[in-house]
Amino acid sequence: MRKALVVFSGGQDSTTCLYWAKKEFDEVEAISFDYGQKHRVELEVAESIARRAGVSFHLFKVDLLSQLNSNALTDPEIEVEPDKPDHRPPNTLVEGRNMLFLTYAGVFAKSKGIFHLVTGVGQADYSGYPDCRDEFIRSLNQTLNLSMEFPYEIHTPLMWKSKEQVWQMADDLGIFDLVRTQTLTCYNGVLGDGCGRCPACKLRRNGLENYLKKRKA
Amino acid sequence: MRKALVVFSGGQDSTTCLYWAKKEFDEVEAISFDYGQKHRVELEVAESIARRAGVSFHLFKVDLLSQLNSNALTDPEIEVEPDKPDHRPPNTLVEGRNMLFLTYAGVFAKSKGIFHLVTGVGQADYSGYPDCRDEFIRSLNQTLNLSMEFPYEIHTPLMWKSKEQVWQMADDLGIFDLVRTQTLTCYNGVLGDGCGRCPACKLRRNGLENYLKKRKA
Repeated sequence: MRKALVVFSGGQDSTTCLYWAKKEFDEVEAISFDYGQKHRVELEVAESIARRAGVSFHLFKVDLLSQLNSNALTDPEIEVEPDKPDHRPPNTLVEGRNMLFLTYAGVFAKSKGIFHLVTGVGQADYSGYPDCRDEFIRSLNQTLNLSMEFPYEIHTPLMWKSKEQVWQMADDLGIFDLVRTQTLTCYNGVLGDGCGRCPACKLRRNGLENYLKKRKA
Repeated sequence: MRKALVVFSGGQDSTTCLYWAKKEFDEVEAISFDYGQKHRVELEVAESIARRAGVSFHLFKVDLLSQLNSNALTDPEIEVEPDKPDHRPPNTLVEGRNMLFLTYAGVFAKSKGIFHLVTGVGQADYSGYPDCRDEFIRSLNQTLNLSMEFPYEIHTPLMWKSKEQVWQMADDLGIFDLVRTQTLTCYNGVLGDGCGRCPACKLRRNGLENYLKKRKA
């Protein structure tokens, strides 16, 4: 039996990955992390989507990340910048986040005999996060295998997809409405179509508009 | 000014690395992790050695590791095996530990503009821990750099040294007595020469005896 563990936040990308994994594997579980994100609703959204999808949901607390770095997703004093800055990463970057989450997911997965890990990162609509790139994920995969002598396979079904293509994928998986209304992508914690002003909303909405135009045509 | 951050436990190996780093770099800091180890005295020992060495000491709590895996260093129900088993890793293996500690150390170091990281792992007296090997550390170094786009350099001054050679190194650094009496290597939490029965004590004592014979000769 092929089992997979999906690193899951309840956003558009990881929800699409969750349903993709349900199609590709015999058994799927979801792992989420409470790392002190300001918008606590994210964790409830994640749990509710996982339940609806019929997959086991595991939530773990990672306190240290927000102590070690300062960013707009965990620090109440820092506001999300409306636009992506030109010459530095956005202030929503949480240093080391994907590396830590995937390592913890790896430790947990190994304890359950699961070696397929799935993450929704992608570099097509590059947002300035170095830890969303394919080169990083491939290097991490190798390091993880060496670290625990276990044949992990990290799957990144969205790596080369634009947001428009991620909407297409949700539609193909039969979860377009679910993704549109029940997922949380917005940096300001607004469900579904979101606040419309933060960079995450702009990216999501732009992809949605392009996809809807294409679907109509 | 060249600065380094040493991943520090207060044992023989990381203490030797701390003093090695003091010789090699202009400024040295130490980072320790409370990951639920049964022998809490380890953390006090680490702080006291760091103070004596005149380096800043940073202690962080990592709760999740002991929740995710079961081993003789964090689980009060599991006793340390007296000998290294033949066909599997020892039950003192904490899955993912070095990967997580070095990643956290990397996040902390970057926030202070430090890119030299020092760790006391080594593969000469191979204890069955995959995350002490050179291949793993080199892969991790690359992954860490990609993760945070920062030019980390992980130094492993003990990688190819036998325990006898680590004693030699302590002697050369003028800290033979300090290491012998003030460090904690023992899995059963006994300072200095330790309990004498656990695998860590046996390895340490065996190296010490060989070194003392050589020194006399």
